Amino acid sequence: MSHRFLRACRREPVDCTPVWFMRQAGRYMAEYRKLREKHSILEVVKTPELAVEVTLQPINAFDLDAAIIFADILPPLEGMGLELEFVKGKGPVIHNPIRTPADVEALRVPSAEETVGFTLDAIRLARRELDGKVPLIGFSGAPFTLASYAIEGGSSRHYKLAKGLMLEHPGAWHTLMDKLAQLIGDYLRGQAEAGAQALQLFDSWVGALSPNDYREYVLPYSKQVIKQAQSAGVPVIHFGTNTNGMLELLREAGGDVIGVDWRIHLDDAWRRLGDDVAIQGNLDPVMLFAPIPEIERRAADILQRAGNRPGHIFNLGHGILPETPVEHVAALADFVHQWPGSRVVE
Amino acid sequence: MSHRFLRACRREPVDCTPVWFMRQAGRYMAEYRKLREKHSILEVVKTPELAVEVTLQPINAFDLDAAIIFADILPPLEGMGLELEFVKGKGPVIHNPIRTPADVEALRVPSAEETVGFTLDAIRLARRELDGKVPLIGFSGAPFTLASYAIEGGSSRHYKLAKGLMLEHPGAWHTLMDKLAQLIGDYLRGQAEAGAQALQLFDSWVGALSPNDYREYVLPYSKQVIKQAQSAGVPVIHFGTNTNGMLELLREAGGDVIGVDWRIHLDDAWRRLGDDVAIQGNLDPVMLFAPIPEIERRAADILQRAGNRPGHIFNLGHGILPETPVEHVAALADFVHQWPGSRVVE
Repeated sequence: MSHRFLRACRREPVDCTPVWFMRQAGRYMAEYRKLREKHSILEVVKTPELAVEVTLQPINAFDLDAAIIFADILPPLEGMGLELEFVKGKGPVIHNPIRTPADVEALRVPSAEETVGFTLDAIRLARRELDGKVPLIGFSGAPFTLASYAIEGGSSRHYKLAKGLMLEHPGAWHTLMDKLAQLIGDYLRGQAEAGAQALQLFDSWVGALSPNDYREYVLPYSKQVIKQAQSAGVPVIHFGTNTNGMLELLREAGGDVIGVDWRIHLDDAWRRLGDDVAIQGNLDPVMLFAPIPEIERRAADILQRAGNRPGHIFNLGHGILPETPVEHVAALADFVHQWPGSRVVE
Repeated sequence: MSHRFLRACRREPVDCTPVWFMRQAGRYMAEYRKLREKHSILEVVKTPELAVEVTLQPINAFDLDAAIIFADILPPLEGMGLELEFVKGKGPVIHNPIRTPADVEALRVPSAEETVGFTLDAIRLARRELDGKVPLIGFSGAPFTLASYAIEGGSSRHYKLAKGLMLEHPGAWHTLMDKLAQLIGDYLRGQAEAGAQALQLFDSWVGALSPNDYREYVLPYSKQVIKQAQSAGVPVIHFGTNTNGMLELLREAGGDVIGVDWRIHLDDAWRRLGDDVAIQGNLDPVMLFAPIPEIERRAADILQRAGNRPGHIFNLGHGILPETPVEHVAALADFVHQWPGSRVVE
């Protein structure tokens, strides 16, 4: 029988609700911080042995139902011709951002093997190391989220430059999205072929768009990469934040599982998405700083709203924050597994 | 007959859709930048003659259906004992933010006249200067949004400290919200008595919360201040962003008009809010940087979705951004007024 995480992706009955956490490998863990004293984030990502070591840290520490390969969403852009650096205290910076149709024209479309072969290698190695203990998730940034970084040159508040290219040079925008979709589709398929048993598409910043702009400038490309990923025979989780005004459109773009943030009741979201799709979420990551009984009270509400229907994967509504207490993460994973249990909540 | 903006607030028929813009007085206008060369933002806010001069700038420049008093949401906090400064390039900073239950205990609840009497004076003066040309809107930050600034000490990404106080010291949180609600209720009522003909409650950052946390820690206080504002006999606009997962709860908190952001179709939002409330919105502010035909295409979609039902006030989904082209603002206001008109769109 396959693992409960994969069963939930396919909306099959499970013995208890599976749980994993976005950014479950990361700065909140002492083991990770120790390794990062000696290696930059890109060194870890680009060295399969280190990436796998980090991938396994939370699996060894907590009772989680899936590992997610340690990687970053931006390295695929390097193979297209963009210069990426992680600047301390500032985050990712692209030194030659895309600003004009000519910049878009100049972008190469490398193969995934060529530009992020190290992550494909890490997936192969992680599968061997995991040895069936839990399934391995691969992932990629979605076309819009990667385009926004490529254009803005880093993180952004209003996405003025990205929306500007979209509005003033729609032809160049579509070319850019097409190039990104080719690479991302190849990358996701490549991850499945390398051994990833599920794939998550992170469209973390797509909630900056209106539903009309999403439909016109983004949806076709997300749909294309999700289809290509699914063609490798693995389930796809489609995740965004601030998308609660247009969940139906994310559903239309595709995915076996839709990941939702904490700004909506899980059952309201699921009702809008429909019964024929699984759902992942949706605890506010900041709640992991609360006293454990408060965390459990909120987790119980989410689990009650899911109502033990097949197809719920417990997760946060976005990634674990850097200073999150490790013992709270452990307690939450255990609480989810014990639900519905003998413990009285509230 | 009262002005079309006030009629729309009450869902009465109008000759055409009223339009105004959040932050319509501000940095994108040369007249404003010129005045700011000589005066800091707090000087302008605290000098009624200057505040009124700025309030009138967009009214003189564009065909808008309402003026909004030039003020800032944070000065009410000064009377409570918080030290506010606007730091160039950084925005508002509170030098002694609230971090402990003792900090909450120490907060005074001043009268609005005492702490923000200058804005009440500015409203009196603006009414005289406007002389009935267009209605005047007063406003306040909502309890949560003010609490988040008071606790974080400035703007924030994750609201970890604000949520932290809420979770670890719920008693202190409720005391803080109660104190803020007392002051804000008095302030909004005072603005109506000074001559404001409508009031907007800005809960700009409340979309950081889950629906459960909104209901438990915020809704009662927003409800209280909205009721108090309405008791002065003026309509209240209740505005938030990233609230599309819990619009029904904002509606429950109250308001004659609900302001929505651009992340949802206007008709989807209105359907969820119900027919017995007016709606304000909802163009993406970044769209004002687009070529004018693109702006008009998007405005037409919003107006079509409103379908000429009484109770739509056209606005952006958030404030005008600093470098917005002035002529685009003018063109959009005119386009809204000409709808449905002889002009062919698309």
